[in-house]
Amino acid sequence: MVAPQEFIQFVDDNTDNFINRLAEAVAIPSISGDATRRPDVVKMANWLNNQLQRYGAKTELVPLGTQVLDGKTIDLPPAILGRIGDDPKKKTILIYGHFDVQPAEKGDGWNTEPFKLHVDKQSGKMFGRGSTDDKGPIMGWINVLEAHQKLGIALPVNMLFCFEGMEESGSEGLDDLIASEAKKGDKGWFRGVDAVCISDNYWLNTRTPCLTYGLRGIAYYQITVSGPGADLHSGIYGGAVYEPMTALIALMSKLVTQDGHILIPGVYDGVAAADADELQVLFHIIHHRYYAQLDPLNHSKKYEDLDYSVADLESAAGGKIANSTEKTTVLMAKMRNPSLSLHGIEGAFSGAGAKTVIPATVHGKFSLRLVPPQTPEDITKKVISYVESEFGKLNSRLTMKIEYLHGGKPWVADYNHWSFEAAKRATEAVYLQTPNYTREGGSIPVTLTFADNLGVNVMLLPMGRADDGAHSTNEKIDISNYIKGTKLLGSYLYEVAEITQTKA
Amino acid sequence: MVAPQEFIQFVDDNTDNFINRLAEAVAIPSISGDATRRPDVVKMANWLNNQLQRYGAKTELVPLGTQVLDGKTIDLPPAILGRIGDDPKKKTILIYGHFDVQPAEKGDGWNTEPFKLHVDKQSGKMFGRGSTDDKGPIMGWINVLEAHQKLGIALPVNMLFCFEGMEESGSEGLDDLIASEAKKGDKGWFRGVDAVCISDNYWLNTRTPCLTYGLRGIAYYQITVSGPGADLHSGIYGGAVYEPMTALIALMSKLVTQDGHILIPGVYDGVAAADADELQVLFHIIHHRYYAQLDPLNHSKKYEDLDYSVADLESAAGGKIANSTEKTTVLMAKMRNPSLSLHGIEGAFSGAGAKTVIPATVHGKFSLRLVPPQTPEDITKKVISYVESEFGKLNSRLTMKIEYLHGGKPWVADYNHWSFEAAKRATEAVYLQTPNYTREGGSIPVTLTFADNLGVNVMLLPMGRADDGAHSTNEKIDISNYIKGTKLLGSYLYEVAEITQTKA
Repeated sequence: MVAPQEFIQFVDDNTDNFINRLAEAVAIPSISGDATRRPDVVKMANWLNNQLQRYGAKTELVPLGTQVLDGKTIDLPPAILGRIGDDPKKKTILIYGHFDVQPAEKGDGWNTEPFKLHVDKQSGKMFGRGSTDDKGPIMGWINVLEAHQKLGIALPVNMLFCFEGMEESGSEGLDDLIASEAKKGDKGWFRGVDAVCISDNYWLNTRTPCLTYGLRGIAYYQITVSGPGADLHSGIYGGAVYEPMTALIALMSKLVTQDGHILIPGVYDGVAAADADELQVLFHIIHHRYYAQLDPLNHSKKYEDLDYSVADLESAAGGKIANSTEKTTVLMAKMRNPSLSLHGIEGAFSGAGAKTVIPATVHGKFSLRLVPPQTPEDITKKVISYVESEFGKLNSRLTMKIEYLHGGKPWVADYNHWSFEAAKRATEAVYLQTPNYTREGGSIPVTLTFADNLGVNVMLLPMGRADDGAHSTNEKIDISNYIKGTKLLGSYLYEVAEITQTKA
Repeated sequence: MVAPQEFIQFVDDNTDNFINRLAEAVAIPSISGDATRRPDVVKMANWLNNQLQRYGAKTELVPLGTQVLDGKTIDLPPAILGRIGDDPKKKTILIYGHFDVQPAEKGDGWNTEPFKLHVDKQSGKMFGRGSTDDKGPIMGWINVLEAHQKLGIALPVNMLFCFEGMEESGSEGLDDLIASEAKKGDKGWFRGVDAVCISDNYWLNTRTPCLTYGLRGIAYYQITVSGPGADLHSGIYGGAVYEPMTALIALMSKLVTQDGHILIPGVYDGVAAADADELQVLFHIIHHRYYAQLDPLNHSKKYEDLDYSVADLESAAGGKIANSTEKTTVLMAKMRNPSLSLHGIEGAFSGAGAKTVIPATVHGKFSLRLVPPQTPEDITKKVISYVESEFGKLNSRLTMKIEYLHGGKPWVADYNHWSFEAAKRATEAVYLQTPNYTREGGSIPVTLTFADNLGVNVMLLPMGRADDGAHSTNEKIDISNYIKGTKLLGSYLYEVAEITQTKA
């Protein structure tokens, strides 16, 4: 069952109306990281809650407690839980989104006012903070609800909503809410949930829609080296003492090569084998024609067919710095291989100009991006053992401590699931393109929270393009992505109904 | 001719009077680095100028122009030039000192008010900002002048004074003044100068007076590595791009070993040979008894007799971090060997906590301390060539630039000169100890300015001890150092007269 033509027509007929809805949402500066803007985040919650109720949802604004921000204890913005439909014969899809945004000021380099949606019909782009992250996708869902209400047709699935106002500030309070609602089972908001759909990431490029089935995990570390009682003058002490910076730089230089190869023994254990399995299945899903002749050891083939180029990567990075000329290699590097980045040093001289200090205590920061079967726990053991061993070889009289600061498991979903198949068919129907199946290099922690607590399939179904500039100046969403994206979200629901009815 | 007993007696009889003089000086918060305190620096200049005039000096307050500080253009504090005596049969000694101080606030960790001299007769220490750096030594000279005026006896030498109020802020304006006065020759303030004596450094320990005949030079560098157009998210890009931090850490790790050995090819050229010569002369001066059996290749012997221990070094550094258990080795490291310190990184994450950034452009800061025959020019060629070669080996597609930011030549004086011999005899007379002959690891740029512009011997004759805490909280000078120091400065003038008359 593809989406009914009247739905598609309604979306086309209501483009201006839908753009106005997005403009209203963008006009509320719901910056969660700024205590003075907290009333705007609450205003945004109420505005969104009214929209949901207007188009048929039963909702609840759930208080999440307090936080300390800018030295003051203030209320967290409420989360919104909601539901439309309770038909046991229909699948129940949980939608997640966030209505808070990153900070933005015109003076940061915006060409237009960040909290006034600037619709440039010439380029087909709409500029404004939150336009793509994540108000555009949320408005897409509201558009779908409005269409069905105005057309007087029932939604093909039961819909659940979980919208939060703290995503840009660590999703404070949300994990507990999800866990407690999940524990309530049939008595909680999430009763009967069959799958989760999250629109909060981006296409791999600017051309091809995608479905995202994996995220890398992370393990963040800090190496602290100390020795002197206070910072020393390099003229008076230089040459006569063991210097903490020399030790820290030596240790940091032994973590990863310039080519990105991680030097920590055992860190790659199991990574290659896991991917060979994954590869077979993925080929099966996307490229039936290749399945028979698949060489499970040739990892690169599945990436060959993604619509992506090294130029896409370098254009987004703003520099010719790809470490391979092969798109398959850089795609695997982003998606399915672990990586290690050196982020910086705390405690050393970090200002402009010249200061002749021997810093007394320095903290080196680095993190690994993890892929299955890596876990922060296992990797931490290997990192600590290796760094301690390398420090021992330096044979200094300094003190070294290596700490795991935070982390999260990698996540890979079953892209064989009906939810992915429904999204693929919806994409083909709306965009006339087969979507890229992607894994993201970064983490979206709420994904794992839903997967772990609800035990159902989670899919990331992005609306925006790779160049939307979430978190950056001149954040935008293309009109076509917003409008076709609305059609895609609606169509996805119909494909879910179609596939699961067929299978049942 | 040792100092007359009546001078020594006068100093003993006027201890309280001299302490009051220092208390008056400390009470003026002449912080040169704080624009709001500039009137106090000028007040201090006037106060000092009055003291000089009261005790017989002809003086001039010399304006040095303006500077920009805290965003405002303000007048530099004047320098004071002065003279007592113009007898062609006497030697003329130029005294340098500075009457400005480092910032200090009680809240920084001072036990007493920093700008109220706290005299603790129990411990024999006087606490206050500027007590040892550099108001104590300047007051020492004023004490000498007062004694001679009150006793009605002529000074044994002609005295010149050059006191500045910007030493703690880069001695702005002073180099030009010295150069222009030097160029005036017999028509300038510095006419007839025979030697320069500077009391603005410290003993090697807390027990033994010293004469300082050398300072290390410095060459400060910045390595800049760039690539991406802006900071990147390590989740999205980690593994697929060459990262500037990885390259910078690799380069910084190749500059110096944990033991302090500098890895830049050719950096030690000539250093060892220079010291063998220096060693013979030094032995001749200090240890006549060893001269016959001197092994010029055994560099360590001259350091064996300095009153110093590894414990002194570690106590001052606040940690057990000496890179040798041999005092001779650590002394040579501080005094006569070059060193290389890694100071920090600008542009990377330098805050507390965790941030998953791939910094786009990072600047690594490091400097070398230089000894003869090293010069910043020669070392810079070697550093640039080496860093560029090492960067090439990384084979990345990043951009690297290595820059020389600033520097200065090392300085070594002829400790065979009558000025040093006079100071040695004065030390033996006052302290009943043979002084340590030391070289300082840091730089005191005005030393080189005097040496280069006046072409006469320059000697550093410190008054305070190694633990005085100049620039730190609870800066102090011991009463005994202040009073014996006053005797030492006076006696030095008599020994100069004695030696030079004998020689003439």
